[in-house]
Amino acid sequence: MFESANLEHKIDKAVYRREEPKLREALLNAQYDLKENGRFPVLILIAGVEGAGKGETVNLLNEWMDPRHIYAHAFPEPSDEERERPPIWRFWRALPPKGKIGIFFGAWHTEPIVGRVQGAISEGEFSQAIAEILRFEKMLCDEGVLLLKFWFHLSKAQQKKRLKALEKDPNTRWRVTKLDWKYFKLYKKFVRVCEPFLHKTSTGEAPWIVVPGADPRYRALTVGRHLLAAMRERLDEKPASRLPGRTPPLLPSADNLNVLRALELDQPMTRDEYQKQLEKWQGRLNMLSRHPRFRDIAVVAVFEGNDAAGKGGAIRRVTAALDARHYHNISVAAPSEEDRAQPYLWRFWRHIPRRGRFAIFDRSWYGRVLVERIEGFCSEADWIRAYTEINDFEQQLVRHDTVVVKFWIAISEDEQLKRFKEREKVVFKRFKITEEDWRNRKKWAAYEQAVCDMVDRTSTSIAPWRLVEANNKYHARIKVLKTLCQAIETALERTKRKA
Amino acid sequence: MFESANLEHKIDKAVYRREEPKLREALLNAQYDLKENGRFPVLILIAGVEGAGKGETVNLLNEWMDPRHIYAHAFPEPSDEERERPPIWRFWRALPPKGKIGIFFGAWHTEPIVGRVQGAISEGEFSQAIAEILRFEKMLCDEGVLLLKFWFHLSKAQQKKRLKALEKDPNTRWRVTKLDWKYFKLYKKFVRVCEPFLHKTSTGEAPWIVVPGADPRYRALTVGRHLLAAMRERLDEKPASRLPGRTPPLLPSADNLNVLRALELDQPMTRDEYQKQLEKWQGRLNMLSRHPRFRDIAVVAVFEGNDAAGKGGAIRRVTAALDARHYHNISVAAPSEEDRAQPYLWRFWRHIPRRGRFAIFDRSWYGRVLVERIEGFCSEADWIRAYTEINDFEQQLVRHDTVVVKFWIAISEDEQLKRFKEREKVVFKRFKITEEDWRNRKKWAAYEQAVCDMVDRTSTSIAPWRLVEANNKYHARIKVLKTLCQAIETALERTKRKA
Repeated sequence: MFESANLEHKIDKAVYRREEPKLREALLNAQYDLKENGRFPVLILIAGVEGAGKGETVNLLNEWMDPRHIYAHAFPEPSDEERERPPIWRFWRALPPKGKIGIFFGAWHTEPIVGRVQGAISEGEFSQAIAEILRFEKMLCDEGVLLLKFWFHLSKAQQKKRLKALEKDPNTRWRVTKLDWKYFKLYKKFVRVCEPFLHKTSTGEAPWIVVPGADPRYRALTVGRHLLAAMRERLDEKPASRLPGRTPPLLPSADNLNVLRALELDQPMTRDEYQKQLEKWQGRLNMLSRHPRFRDIAVVAVFEGNDAAGKGGAIRRVTAALDARHYHNISVAAPSEEDRAQPYLWRFWRHIPRRGRFAIFDRSWYGRVLVERIEGFCSEADWIRAYTEINDFEQQLVRHDTVVVKFWIAISEDEQLKRFKEREKVVFKRFKITEEDWRNRKKWAAYEQAVCDMVDRTSTSIAPWRLVEANNKYHARIKVLKTLCQAIETALERTKRKA
Repeated sequence: MFESANLEHKIDKAVYRREEPKLREALLNAQYDLKENGRFPVLILIAGVEGAGKGETVNLLNEWMDPRHIYAHAFPEPSDEERERPPIWRFWRALPPKGKIGIFFGAWHTEPIVGRVQGAISEGEFSQAIAEILRFEKMLCDEGVLLLKFWFHLSKAQQKKRLKALEKDPNTRWRVTKLDWKYFKLYKKFVRVCEPFLHKTSTGEAPWIVVPGADPRYRALTVGRHLLAAMRERLDEKPASRLPGRTPPLLPSADNLNVLRALELDQPMTRDEYQKQLEKWQGRLNMLSRHPRFRDIAVVAVFEGNDAAGKGGAIRRVTAALDARHYHNISVAAPSEEDRAQPYLWRFWRHIPRRGRFAIFDRSWYGRVLVERIEGFCSEADWIRAYTEINDFEQQLVRHDTVVVKFWIAISEDEQLKRFKEREKVVFKRFKITEEDWRNRKKWAAYEQAVCDMVDRTSTSIAPWRLVEANNKYHARIKVLKTLCQAIETALERTKRKA
């Protein structure tokens, strides 16, 4: 991987003086075309060895282009805010929107590489990290991000020379720390870890571009030209004529049976019984939320269901048991312009709770495989890959001690009709029923199929779907509260064993 | 993943009698259209729990369609032939060509799943296996294979019932072995391993289709309809209008320096010195090939280089030192019709040597990133993904104790001109020079760039490129022999430590 970069590359001052202004102008033009075009974001990763000119390059790009449309981020030690969420969260929140350029100075590759060099993670864990990075980057590219990954390289001799030079100059002496020399001693080990890492994470869509870092002029032209060529190529391409579907179609079950139809939706519960149970489970939930070890976990509760199934009512019974400072209610409607400028999971990552908190989603990321699938808001390839992306997302949450509880609140077609009509009759319920509800109702069969596929493909042992029979609202609400309590209890048990 | 499949699905006899003939006819038509169309192969994986009707389904597909164009393979204990090659080799040799249907009864997923259930491999190794499977299947799909993966499922109760029923019937009693009951006891563990496996290896291009296996009619219709829908969709799509390149362009280095230009191609060696060295290293190579531990390794030597660089001459100096029974010389020209009906690595996998043997490739799989790239025989996306595919391929070899030694035999542009002219003059050398050589020569710069990219992206610590300065043939031949000997010595050392 470093064969070319180990050579003594060099650009003459005269050549640079001639080339640099042309490149700058072209880059600035490309940046404005990107802003105009607004169809994709550019994300530049700056990685590699110390002293190879990473920081200088970030400064240079800011100097060459309009810094108002560049979002540069470094990722030092994570903040409190960040430590209490899955490690990938800090990168999600820093993603550039469409039309803009983001520069990540160090990113998701740093931790596994450093961990492996220091022996803190095993070869198997390193492989796992690589697999996750591949899936994450694939998702970004599938979502339209132009991802450019620059790896700044110095040979061992070059790095030594560079660190010495920095140390000698009183103006730059502060930049060389003991840690730099410690890493320098690990140079060989570092390369042994990085080389297969770069090979394995170089994909067609986002190959690593190795930048020889010793000569400032050489590395500047290399980065600038790659950035320009990649931006121009994407800007000049015609708006996506999609490849014909490479996706074998998912078919409904061959008989009339599916997970929804197998439910007995009418579950009896009297009002008295409900009141008794409500008190019991709300009390329990409240106690759990004040449990000392609750500060080590977070809860994400997802409510999906048929229109008029009673999602809102169930959610209110949950929140009634909680301290308002400890939960956040997220009602998911059509994505805003800001949301649409980002990969679709972005708007949900924003609301991932810190430790000790609840996030309650009234509709969720599952819109991708429900309404977006059915209304054709995204392509078949998009919603099919979403199953894996969602599973990855929830795995990140669970691994970070977040309890993910997903409810499908189910009513029958007849029950829905009854409730729709009732809503139309009762004045204070009118706002709850719209033309769109009636339109959706006509697509009952399509939704049923989408829900069954969703359950099959995203019900995992770590984040299973809970199907809630809801023709009787009392039964549904109690089942939700009870399930939630039990999930939290299991998680608290686990943290106890961990401690 | 098994939510739907755990339901008691069932198809009435009457319904089946009505549906089955229609499905059969449509499948047979699709099979003939596939043969006619000839643009892609269909590969069906049959996997899942014992007793769920996997064998019956294979038989049924053979019965429904024309068995002459179906290649069914089971993969029991590997043969000697297979054990002496990387585990994936047996699947490569069984791949169906374009226009045909292959059925794999068990495949690359079996070993990691069983290994994990039995605790023979760790969670990390399991993750690694999953990552490799994903890359392998992606390669198949990118190469145009229509991959259908069926997972046959039974709930625990259904499996018990099924095994008991088989045992009771004297005609099927033999099918239930102690091993089946042993596995049955591991049912829960099995599901705990399989469920995340299926989630993680379900991709947009090749999702797992879970088939409830309890009712023969239900599973038959399910498999048949999915197969039909997927074949029809692919058959009816218009010949690939490719997506515009999603690949950031690879640019040449910003100065005039690259790994080839950095070589000092004129390395002195006199004829006398050459004779002395030749005797020494050929003797050494011969000794090594007869070393007792040589039976534990295999050698793959790859020769690439400029036209007229002396690949043939170097190869002859190697083979002269070997017993003719122990090496196989593979001269790679344009792919045959048979080759073109398969993923491009297929024709090289065919020649992978058993243990104790040499395979010497005069040109190789690197044609993908050299001539095919430059002549536009494949798309940019194809040759860029080839870097990763080739690295994966060579990793399989090395992990299986195969020594991979890759030579780039390099001469200067002037030296080539001299040799071309000489070849034209000398009668017995005339056959060695063609119009095509002159045409290629005009593309010197493009080849140079392609070679540099190839070295950077496929020179790995386990299989590095060896650049051989070859303006002086003597020097080149000795360097090849010496490098080969040293690589074999290192490998023999390693087997010693292993033993």
